[in-house]
Amino acid sequence: MLQVAGDTLAEQGFAHLDLADIARRAEVGKTTVYRRWGTVTGLVADLLTDMAEQSLPRTETGSLLGDLKANARLVQRTLADPRQGALFKAVIAAATCEAKTAEALHHFYDIRVKEWAPCVQQAIDRGEVPDGTDTHEVIRAVSAPLYYRLLTSGDRLDEAAADRAAEAAAVAARAGAYKRTEGLA
Amino acid sequence: MLQVAGDTLAEQGFAHLDLADIARRAEVGKTTVYRRWGTVTGLVADLLTDMAEQSLPRTETGSLLGDLKANARLVQRTLADPRQGALFKAVIAAATCEAKTAEALHHFYDIRVKEWAPCVQQAIDRGEVPDGTDTHEVIRAVSAPLYYRLLTSGDRLDEAAADRAAEAAAVAARAGAYKRTEGLA
Repeated sequence: MLQVAGDTLAEQGFAHLDLADIARRAEVGKTTVYRRWGTVTGLVADLLTDMAEQSLPRTETGSLLGDLKANARLVQRTLADPRQGALFKAVIAAATCEAKTAEALHHFYDIRVKEWAPCVQQAIDRGEVPDGTDTHEVIRAVSAPLYYRLLTSGDRLDEAAADRAAEAAAVAARAGAYKRTEGLA
Repeated sequence: MLQVAGDTLAEQGFAHLDLADIARRAEVGKTTVYRRWGTVTGLVADLLTDMAEQSLPRTETGSLLGDLKANARLVQRTLADPRQGALFKAVIAAATCEAKTAEALHHFYDIRVKEWAPCVQQAIDRGEVPDGTDTHEVIRAVSAPLYYRLLTSGDRLDEAAADRAAEAAAVAARAGAYKRTEGLA
């Protein structure tokens, strides 16, 4: 059913998402769908949990740039895929309308950022990046230009965009641009 | 009427936007609203044109970092403002559902990027940033982390986030991270 819900969201966007329609497409009873999720919000939250669980673990390449490029390429491939890209657009749009969906979306990105943040910590340990760097911010800096392009432009998300996002984040991290400004690390 | 449309979008999100409701709130006849815009899509496109026209011109500080910080602070103040932040979320969400709205949104960001890109060209002319740098990409790099934070986290958009976005973009631009990879500038 989550597969069908994801397909429907990707195809039609969240504004037209309807539990009865999903039940019909998944060929299950309406009651089953309503009992399980109650509302579209509940379904989208469940879908985001599933997306987080199915996300790939990080790859280790031995260098900060290599690791950030691996991360950027993964995000780029995901967002450039027609179904996945449309699905991410739809859940981000749904989150702007509904506090519970926003919470589930924030949780999804927290999990993804935590998955990749250790590669920045390793760069700190190697002395490649200064102490006190906000490891989470570096990971977010890699994704940000790719999501920004997806949402605010019609430009294609290609590998060049991914590599540039990784390179810019690596250069800025090495230069100390992501050092925490308040309190201690 | 655009003021009322903007208020309604900011308050209720685009999923509940209704032309008849806007006519009622603006105290004009329904016919006037339908004749002018026809659909919610037409109205949002008009609103984006108005937002582009009302956007502030860029400030010149004499240094790349200063200029990018001024840009970042402007984006941050806009997105951190409750009404404006909600309005931007709503138009981005609307653009994920409707090709014409997406076009209007892309046009809005094109205008904003073109407004600020000359500060990167000036940095190239001063020798601060290498030749062949994609000036538009540098400007997008300043906005991207702020929009990413707005849409994917519950974290507050503060001035520290704006300054960090500007610093990271300036450092990466100086290091040549935004040089065009294909063709010539």
